[in-house]
Amino acid sequence: MPDSPAEPGATIDMEAWVCPAPLRNAPNIVMGHGGGGAMSAELIEHLFLPAFGSAADAAMGDSAVLPIGDVRLAFSTDSFVVKPLVFPGGTIGDLAVNGTVNDLAMAGAQPVVLSTAFILEEGTPLDELAHVAHAVGTAAMAAGVKLVTGDTKVVDAGHGDGVYINTTGIGLVDERADIRPQRATEGDVVIISGDIGTHGVAVMSCREGLEFGTTVASDTAPLHRLVAAMIDTGADIHTLRDPTRGGVAATLNEIARTAGVGISLDERAFPIPAEVRDACGLLGLDPLYVANEGKLLAFVAPDDVDRVLSAMHAHPLGTRAAVIGRCVAEHPGMVSARTALGGTRVVDLPIGEQLPRIC
Amino acid sequence: MPDSPAEPGATIDMEAWVCPAPLRNAPNIVMGHGGGGAMSAELIEHLFLPAFGSAADAAMGDSAVLPIGDVRLAFSTDSFVVKPLVFPGGTIGDLAVNGTVNDLAMAGAQPVVLSTAFILEEGTPLDELAHVAHAVGTAAMAAGVKLVTGDTKVVDAGHGDGVYINTTGIGLVDERADIRPQRATEGDVVIISGDIGTHGVAVMSCREGLEFGTTVASDTAPLHRLVAAMIDTGADIHTLRDPTRGGVAATLNEIARTAGVGISLDERAFPIPAEVRDACGLLGLDPLYVANEGKLLAFVAPDDVDRVLSAMHAHPLGTRAAVIGRCVAEHPGMVSARTALGGTRVVDLPIGEQLPRIC
Repeated sequence: MPDSPAEPGATIDMEAWVCPAPLRNAPNIVMGHGGGGAMSAELIEHLFLPAFGSAADAAMGDSAVLPIGDVRLAFSTDSFVVKPLVFPGGTIGDLAVNGTVNDLAMAGAQPVVLSTAFILEEGTPLDELAHVAHAVGTAAMAAGVKLVTGDTKVVDAGHGDGVYINTTGIGLVDERADIRPQRATEGDVVIISGDIGTHGVAVMSCREGLEFGTTVASDTAPLHRLVAAMIDTGADIHTLRDPTRGGVAATLNEIARTAGVGISLDERAFPIPAEVRDACGLLGLDPLYVANEGKLLAFVAPDDVDRVLSAMHAHPLGTRAAVIGRCVAEHPGMVSARTALGGTRVVDLPIGEQLPRIC
Repeated sequence: MPDSPAEPGATIDMEAWVCPAPLRNAPNIVMGHGGGGAMSAELIEHLFLPAFGSAADAAMGDSAVLPIGDVRLAFSTDSFVVKPLVFPGGTIGDLAVNGTVNDLAMAGAQPVVLSTAFILEEGTPLDELAHVAHAVGTAAMAAGVKLVTGDTKVVDAGHGDGVYINTTGIGLVDERADIRPQRATEGDVVIISGDIGTHGVAVMSCREGLEFGTTVASDTAPLHRLVAAMIDTGADIHTLRDPTRGGVAATLNEIARTAGVGISLDERAFPIPAEVRDACGLLGLDPLYVANEGKLLAFVAPDDVDRVLSAMHAHPLGTRAAVIGRCVAEHPGMVSARTALGGTRVVDLPIGEQLPRIC
């Protein structure tokens, strides 16, 4: 590589890239490309990774673990475009803090600093922005993470939607932890930290054109202290993931594919509040596909289940933790569920997006 | 602080915040809040910092320097919303890489990793996205920085503008460096690394409704190797900044205020290409206020000027480096310029934005 390849005035060869063949069925971006399901995965695999070339780390996951100096850092980024900005139980501001804190926590890291970058739409009331910014500050204080650098851009009216927030975080990985999707293995027990589906239902309940009465509030919460309590048991936690976009179904499918294991679930074991079941029935949604923002899925060896579960139950964010399934040798890369009626169904990776702009 | 303050279902007190008084003259966000001038500064000082409260580091600058383990990390974030996505000499993709690489470099750091977060508008052609992503990859390879984690969100048509990109970077600060705005001091010589105004003019030249013929190409380039060459001279570099939004005028005003020094410029010393002068005349712009993306301003003690300037002239991105002014005891916090006619004028902090969405 030459020392200074970017000569002043150098131009990028814009003819060098055309849309990759596997994506040609959809020549334009559609909402589904942002849903965290199959279309999101295709966009990364067939467009971003080839386009980035050797500059990309092959993993490009939700977070990266970087050995720097004498420590391991976790590094994660997320943009938040949730609509509306304020919903039962939370706002885009606390979501932006907790979402990135949780991506760091899923690598076994405690968050240290966050950056905050706002894209504001011309005409957004300053009062509304102040509310959101205050929620960012409150959530950061609650999570014990410092906001150390930021950026603000403004786009013309009609090219944004009030407030978009990117947060990017640095965390310190616990030296005892080696937590990654690749470590999920046959025999592992799958634990969910609590009730599923509340974030998605809370956001939908106040979405324009869809308002319906519900007492469901978003579960947005920072999970790093729960993770620390789980690590402190001495258990070897193989895999952690927060089931956000695409819900439990998308997250478990991604882990099954990455680790090359099958995952077998017991539908009756999932903690699902009655209000979430009702709302999902009303909207024609499957709770397994609805986004969460303050829950985690943990994969641990059978011998470690009891102590991990005890630690979770003792923590305010894990009181309703439950075993929901197991990694199996059958159907590697796939997720199945035993239904309430005793049958078995395939829990597919969602294609696009059931609920757009949920985070 | 309680251990788990974010109970499931906890709500944010949205009444706790109202728009701070100093911003009440403009009750809504206007384009000027994103211009890098006085309105941007007010938004940070009177809205973001009070709203963030004790979660915010008081500095909240373009980059933060964090002692972690046995090293010092630089950490910086920027969102890019430039319009159009492709302009003479560059694209939003290379801008997004070089912009964050340069913010790290201005702290005396070499970039190590970047995150990339895309906000895509529904309906954006995949070919266009592939072009931009390829530019990201090419620029990252040229800068020698790895893309290790990312995120993609999609917003409905009419709530974005093709592609917005956030990049956030981690760099390693050179152990010899203590480079920050506060260190600019009386007697310091101010150096610019080359021609000013080319990025802003290049973007404007192809902006809808403003097209005009010009041969000016954006100067987008990564500056960390130029900075390394300057540090390698052994000189004590006090302050570095890249004069992006708001141009040289905004950047120097910010440094003057932060350091409490006066800055006296010699307008005739600025390297300004004839095409930039012509275009600025046509558009009624002052080149000192036009954005750059591959230039830096350096503050060094008089004894160090010769060796720093020699090192800059020997580097492809510094061949036209020039001394443009000096820090003075007079008018602390303000910037003045001796004009071509021998008079003196005040170079104000711009209020809002001459050229919106330039980066």
